[in-house]
Amino acid sequence: MGDRLLVIGGDGAGMAAAAQARRRAPDLDIVALEKGRWTSYSACGIPYLVGGSVHALDDLVARKPEEFRAMRIDVRTEHEVTGLDLVNRKAEVDNREHGRTFRLGFDLLHLATGAVPHRPDLPGINLGHVHGVQTLGDAARLLADVKTRRPRHVTVVGSGYIGLELAEAFVERGASVTVVEAADEVMGTLDPDMGAMVARAMRGMGITLRTGEPMVAISDKAVHTAAGEIPADLVILGLGVSPNSTLAADAGVETGRSDAIVVDRQQRASVPGVWAAGDCCQSINLVSGRPVHEALGTVANKQGRVAGINIGGGYATFPGVAGTAVTRICQLEIGRTGLSEREATAAGFSYVTAKVETTTNSGYMPDAAAVTVKLLAERGAGRVLGAQILGGHGAAKRVDVVVAALTAGCTVEDLVGMDLGYAPPFSSVWDPVQIAARQALADLG
Amino acid sequence: MGDRLLVIGGDGAGMAAAAQARRRAPDLDIVALEKGRWTSYSACGIPYLVGGSVHALDDLVARKPEEFRAMRIDVRTEHEVTGLDLVNRKAEVDNREHGRTFRLGFDLLHLATGAVPHRPDLPGINLGHVHGVQTLGDAARLLADVKTRRPRHVTVVGSGYIGLELAEAFVERGASVTVVEAADEVMGTLDPDMGAMVARAMRGMGITLRTGEPMVAISDKAVHTAAGEIPADLVILGLGVSPNSTLAADAGVETGRSDAIVVDRQQRASVPGVWAAGDCCQSINLVSGRPVHEALGTVANKQGRVAGINIGGGYATFPGVAGTAVTRICQLEIGRTGLSEREATAAGFSYVTAKVETTTNSGYMPDAAAVTVKLLAERGAGRVLGAQILGGHGAAKRVDVVVAALTAGCTVEDLVGMDLGYAPPFSSVWDPVQIAARQALADLG
Repeated sequence: MGDRLLVIGGDGAGMAAAAQARRRAPDLDIVALEKGRWTSYSACGIPYLVGGSVHALDDLVARKPEEFRAMRIDVRTEHEVTGLDLVNRKAEVDNREHGRTFRLGFDLLHLATGAVPHRPDLPGINLGHVHGVQTLGDAARLLADVKTRRPRHVTVVGSGYIGLELAEAFVERGASVTVVEAADEVMGTLDPDMGAMVARAMRGMGITLRTGEPMVAISDKAVHTAAGEIPADLVILGLGVSPNSTLAADAGVETGRSDAIVVDRQQRASVPGVWAAGDCCQSINLVSGRPVHEALGTVANKQGRVAGINIGGGYATFPGVAGTAVTRICQLEIGRTGLSEREATAAGFSYVTAKVETTTNSGYMPDAAAVTVKLLAERGAGRVLGAQILGGHGAAKRVDVVVAALTAGCTVEDLVGMDLGYAPPFSSVWDPVQIAARQALADLG
Repeated sequence: MGDRLLVIGGDGAGMAAAAQARRRAPDLDIVALEKGRWTSYSACGIPYLVGGSVHALDDLVARKPEEFRAMRIDVRTEHEVTGLDLVNRKAEVDNREHGRTFRLGFDLLHLATGAVPHRPDLPGINLGHVHGVQTLGDAARLLADVKTRRPRHVTVVGSGYIGLELAEAFVERGASVTVVEAADEVMGTLDPDMGAMVARAMRGMGITLRTGEPMVAISDKAVHTAAGEIPADLVILGLGVSPNSTLAADAGVETGRSDAIVVDRQQRASVPGVWAAGDCCQSINLVSGRPVHEALGTVANKQGRVAGINIGGGYATFPGVAGTAVTRICQLEIGRTGLSEREATAAGFSYVTAKVETTTNSGYMPDAAAVTVKLLAERGAGRVLGAQILGGHGAAKRVDVVVAALTAGCTVEDLVGMDLGYAPPFSSVWDPVQIAARQALADLG
């Protein structure tokens, strides 16, 4: 038997690493501990489960424990690691199913402990009808609670991606939905002018939106803000997440931004023989060069793959995140990547912005839909810094060409010249992204 | 009055140049001659006009002559240039509307004469029911002919983009449609394995497909091939186009690949003070570095813009084409960019191919559709050489991220690491392009 790799966390960041390590190191003894009941699932699919377009919780599971066991990965669900000794290489493990604790030795460690929803310390925050939604376990509890309570009034606190997706899901279930946001505009990852478009789409679908209203307390039947009380049989916390890094930090692993685990290009943590990936760890934004905490499934899977290749004796690096996110809220497709105006300013960039309103495909086509593209370009050579694209059918994934452009360090002039796909069902003869790039180029002077 | 710029051709390549030149050079006297009746139109929209989803021919016109005249561009439709003297800077012009010819002097010349459909010298090729479809004038004649003949049997000869789009349009009109192709597979810009998917989609929509059957003649009611005769009340020529470059070549302008006009990075032709853009001129494929003739509206507009900026005293360059094309044929979205296997081999590349079958968005979503991605990567560092993406909703425009990648010289490893947009309605956690890139990376060893 070779060295033992202990993987803590059985979702994408953990199991992608385990699978890659297994492939490259057949002799490695791999144990993966997951405190919940499911492995490798799509937390991003939870709103569609709640809304009803996905029918069963199990549909969100990409790979079951049996599949990993068939790869000789010893997956144990309902096993929580409660302590780590990195000097003696031992983990304290709680078998939650059988209520037993035991110690498990390891040689190599991969931390994929994920993130936990923010729960501000306010009266009523721990009441039974208040749900943070991050894991499939959270989803199971939420669905059970929905079945019991049959909520007529659902209030979502916060207006990030998952919160707004769940708000829409509850509208689809027939509930009366309110979103309460402390800031003046929803979806703070967008510039306020673009966030306003999201707010309009939400209101158009019948969601009550209350911005500039910090929550102060929750009671059995309401969410309380400075401005009054909002009826709520069910409360969803959409206030973002924090890295679940206490275990690692307590064991002496360095943490950084938002207490996320600091990793190098190979996803190695500060202690030799320890790796980390996913929602528990820090990334570098490749446009600003700054450390960020981005808890996204696609990043988790990429980092997990990189960690696993390196653990298995190969070589791979994670180049950083671009700050990409896409979603669809109340029929409005939303895509963003790179830096927003606020982020660009904070990073010290001077920039021009171009904002154009056009159509997703040729204007004469019957299904042409409105799209707004906002593009940020650095003054001087015009390096692409970021984009926000909001609109109908085909809007969101248009950020991908900007992702590629800013990853490769392209300028808006490069974007203008790119031979992007054109046919009337898909685009105007100048792609909307290029129309914005042309305007940015003109503004650069 | 300043110098006179003569623009020959009033579609995108001509009028984009005229508009850019006007903006930069207010004193320039600009005359644009168009032999047809329309300016700046979308020839790519013709199949949707024939199929009925676009209702009026005028809907395809982006800008009318009046709009250019308001910009002080003297546009004259139904004016054909029949001769050019580049030494004395004079054009022979035929005013077709009034049946008069006259001479027009100029200082600067921009050639945007477009392309003409291939018409092989076969018996019956010039019969009245045989249509090449390249200009809006061709579309008007086709629509008038359809109205008179009410064709029940339509045969499309050749299986390029416009031919197949028109084949589908006639199915939508209720005709019985046959496509005859001399080669063994349809859509020769795709590799045969991918072309076979297009053939399946066509047959699935009731189109009769006859491959490996060169046309030998056309008669009043049939297209004749070596294998027999195919009933045809109406015949569409979809055999590709040739640059309309005779006028330029006769005047001493250098032509190259397929007799297309040779231009430099600024779209300057071989004779000083002469520019060219669009379907009449040659491009460089930026992956192979080789001259190509690509008659596409998006390329024409880009080249026209570059020519116009330079004519107006600015500076812009056209970086080359990537070989991108997207379309939708019989519900199948088709995107391709870069080099096919045949093209890569011809250019001297050694490469690996990765071909993956997956879904356009998360597999558990109700609207997840099948998609096949084929990716070519150069041996060694794994530079991205090309991609072909065929599938349902959201497949075609995924080539754009590959366009950006190969334009920037990225490798498949770069593609794997890119922070592409992910949300269940739009993508799996690894975008289909990245799933293919991962396989190519593994195959590179």
